Amino acid sequence: MAKGVEWALHTLLNLDMIGGGPVGSGQLAEAHGLSPSYLNKQLQQLARAGIVASVPGPRGGFRLTKPLESITLLDVVEAIEGDTEVFHCTEIRCSGKIGELSPPLTGACAVKAAMRRAEQEWHRALAAQCLADIRAELNRSPMVRQVVRSALN
Amino acid sequence: MAKGVEWALHTLLNLDMIGGGPVGSGQLAEAHGLSPSYLNKQLQQLARAGIVASVPGPRGGFRLTKPLESITLLDVVEAIEGDTEVFHCTEIRCSGKIGELSPPLTGACAVKAAMRRAEQEWHRALAAQCLADIRAELNRSPMVRQVVRSALN
Repeated sequence: MAKGVEWALHTLLNLDMIGGGPVGSGQLAEAHGLSPSYLNKQLQQLARAGIVASVPGPRGGFRLTKPLESITLLDVVEAIEGDTEVFHCTEIRCSGKIGELSPPLTGACAVKAAMRRAEQEWHRALAAQCLADIRAELNRSPMVRQVVRSALN
Repeated sequence: MAKGVEWALHTLLNLDMIGGGPVGSGQLAEAHGLSPSYLNKQLQQLARAGIVASVPGPRGGFRLTKPLESITLLDVVEAIEGDTEVFHCTEIRCSGKIGELSPPLTGACAVKAAMRRAEQEWHRALAAQCLADIRAELNRSPMVRQVVRSALN
């Protein structure tokens, strides 16, 4: 998984902690010492997924479009990664000697199906957690919000 | 995930279908039209994990060391991939302006912890499925075993 997912998750939490934005991508990048151009790409991906919106103008930037209760980990992973398949089936069952000798195959490959079942549990667990759950954990240290506000104001 | 996982899973199932081996890595590669050198590397990884054993000699090759009931999807993924973490935490919470302003952080990052919880569900689902489950599905088409035997004999 690309580091963009880590960047996006922290940036969304930071945006929430300062009231939702808008904040410029440069400032959001500086908050964690990230590459502004790469973070900007991740923010564009989040905007395409409807998680943030781009606000034009000198006081513009990116702002959250919804509360953290409505943003799941899966939403962010899908927005950044696009393809969230971990196991890539290249259908080797149809290649080589075995492929030549096999009758035309119907139905999904049993290996692929088993790996997909496991991935579905991962997706389910990503979809079951929202960013508000992480915020609740962060809020146990009141300093966190204070630090984020100082860094982004 | 590298294609080696797909290769390893099919190869282990093939070994079982012809009685466990030993079969040379070249012949196993030919069965699915795979790169013999790359498959050999995967087989060495499986040997290191104790899933197969290398048998020397002219009639040697790789053989299964245990029944498919005792080999889980997680065993194979871990043998081939080594590091099975999908989300990589680079601790950006300690970097940039926020890192500078933060008091020394104790405990795991809440973002990382949430992503790990989801991955644990994936691992659990991989560990809950063994290769014998896949074989049971393949056995619904009696042709499969016949084809594998013809290809590897």
